[in-house]
Amino acid sequence: MPKTLKIFSPATVANVACGFDVLGFALNHPGDEISIALSDGDAIVLHDKTPYSLPLLPEKNATAVALQAMLNALQSRQGFDITFLSKIMPGSGVGSSAASSAAGVFGANELLGRPFTRRQLVEFAMQGEKAASGSAHADNVAPALMGGFTLVRSYTPLDVIPIPSPPIFAAVVHPQIEVRTSDSRKILRQEVPIKKAVEQWGNVAGLVAGLFTNDYELISRSLHDVIVEPVRALLIPEFYAIKQAAIDAGALGCSISGSGPSIFALSRDEETAQKVAQAMRYGFDRVGIENHLFVSPINKEGVRVSE
Amino acid sequence: MPKTLKIFSPATVANVACGFDVLGFALNHPGDEISIALSDGDAIVLHDKTPYSLPLLPEKNATAVALQAMLNALQSRQGFDITFLSKIMPGSGVGSSAASSAAGVFGANELLGRPFTRRQLVEFAMQGEKAASGSAHADNVAPALMGGFTLVRSYTPLDVIPIPSPPIFAAVVHPQIEVRTSDSRKILRQEVPIKKAVEQWGNVAGLVAGLFTNDYELISRSLHDVIVEPVRALLIPEFYAIKQAAIDAGALGCSISGSGPSIFALSRDEETAQKVAQAMRYGFDRVGIENHLFVSPINKEGVRVSE
Repeated sequence: MPKTLKIFSPATVANVACGFDVLGFALNHPGDEISIALSDGDAIVLHDKTPYSLPLLPEKNATAVALQAMLNALQSRQGFDITFLSKIMPGSGVGSSAASSAAGVFGANELLGRPFTRRQLVEFAMQGEKAASGSAHADNVAPALMGGFTLVRSYTPLDVIPIPSPPIFAAVVHPQIEVRTSDSRKILRQEVPIKKAVEQWGNVAGLVAGLFTNDYELISRSLHDVIVEPVRALLIPEFYAIKQAAIDAGALGCSISGSGPSIFALSRDEETAQKVAQAMRYGFDRVGIENHLFVSPINKEGVRVSE
Repeated sequence: MPKTLKIFSPATVANVACGFDVLGFALNHPGDEISIALSDGDAIVLHDKTPYSLPLLPEKNATAVALQAMLNALQSRQGFDITFLSKIMPGSGVGSSAASSAAGVFGANELLGRPFTRRQLVEFAMQGEKAASGSAHADNVAPALMGGFTLVRSYTPLDVIPIPSPPIFAAVVHPQIEVRTSDSRKILRQEVPIKKAVEQWGNVAGLVAGLFTNDYELISRSLHDVIVEPVRALLIPEFYAIKQAAIDAGALGCSISGSGPSIFALSRDEETAQKVAQAMRYGFDRVGIENHLFVSPINKEGVRVSE
């Protein structure tokens, strides 16, 4: 059994327009890279080679919290040395803390001879999410661990369903503005009109059906969020202009990635996704908001050993 | 072209637990039977051979209203003679008015050489629903016309998606109590907690995924309604006892059919569905509520020419 592994853990887009808190998918890049090794001691020791000054106290670090939850389930006192090599920018809205949480539990699971399936690791990675954002969500950690599109049907008990998909390319633009996950949750209404809820679950059902049947038109018609996007769009300058530009450039749909501020759009081929990405970038460029751009197919594999 | 047709139009179960206002499926029986013929005049003339004293003024009769909507779209002044031969009991909650609406437009469409697809007929049949219940719903007329499970993803524009399914058997028990569709809509809350809405669309997505993958366990886990059933159950005596009895007898799930008072349960084979039906019936029998029982596979074909 190898004693040190390098792990790549992908960025993820949660919500996917209509699927607030239940749907997500993984990207090929960006991602987190860590190296992880069994140690002789019983502590989780963290080293940071990223530019982000990550919290290195094990009880405040998503990777360590997730790993500790897994070790507790195994009643193991095994120690680990973990080095953060590169990192999705925190606060980007593409599952930075989920990637960290997934990397740790996946790497440790590999080193320990795979006592758990990827699906089982979701429950532990959620604890890392909780440490990072205050809420034990699975809509980013599930696709980070399992790849592809995933549905978190239920939390009690946890029930994660992989959803197949035809070739789809994502364009994600990350404006350099700060939106805290906790803030973007706070502004949501606690009650929603039943008419809007019905519209939303019609679209969720339509999106799942479209993914199963490779029906890009149906996927496109279903990529609407009438509940959360209208509220969170207020936190993202130029959101509606950028969304319109993405649609005009040929995107199937466009909405906020997770709790923002990143915006994602889906396209049926890479050429379109590149055009859509440029159109989205221009929307921020023209008002002087610095931004990062990613274009990626849906990552089917999820977190993996990279070396 | 034949001048007279007999049409069988199936009963339908709308909502299907989690899919309030968007999901429905068709049954093999009960159903409406009509005969329909082209006439020499330009009026829709109605004859009633059922025991239900159906409204025979064309502007109050669901079949005639739906047919008139279709004729308007064709700019046709063709007249029809329609005889209602047998009828699902009105107010049962298994799509009685939808069956009537579907029968008329389907029969006329056949007699006129099929100017419309079944899916296109949904829009006209919805007008019959509106005449009967005050609301132009499609969640019963869509499965009545198209068969199988259907998803009404959107009303504006109308977007009806057929959802495939593995073999599934429905047991439906109709207690002889009156619940008006308009009353059962009035008691619904206009606002719902977002947490419950998320739970509901997780289940809707799970149910659709389960139907696509023939995953009976997933179908079963997804057949929960946390929004509408808790309110409407108040109108149906013994609801929770009967639901528990259905589950105990092996049903995948059990909830209210449409706006009630009928209760439906789904099972993976006919033998189980028969046991479930008896368990449900007993729930009403033991408190002296008269009831009718139906056991049927999912009807894959929808409304059809029966003779």
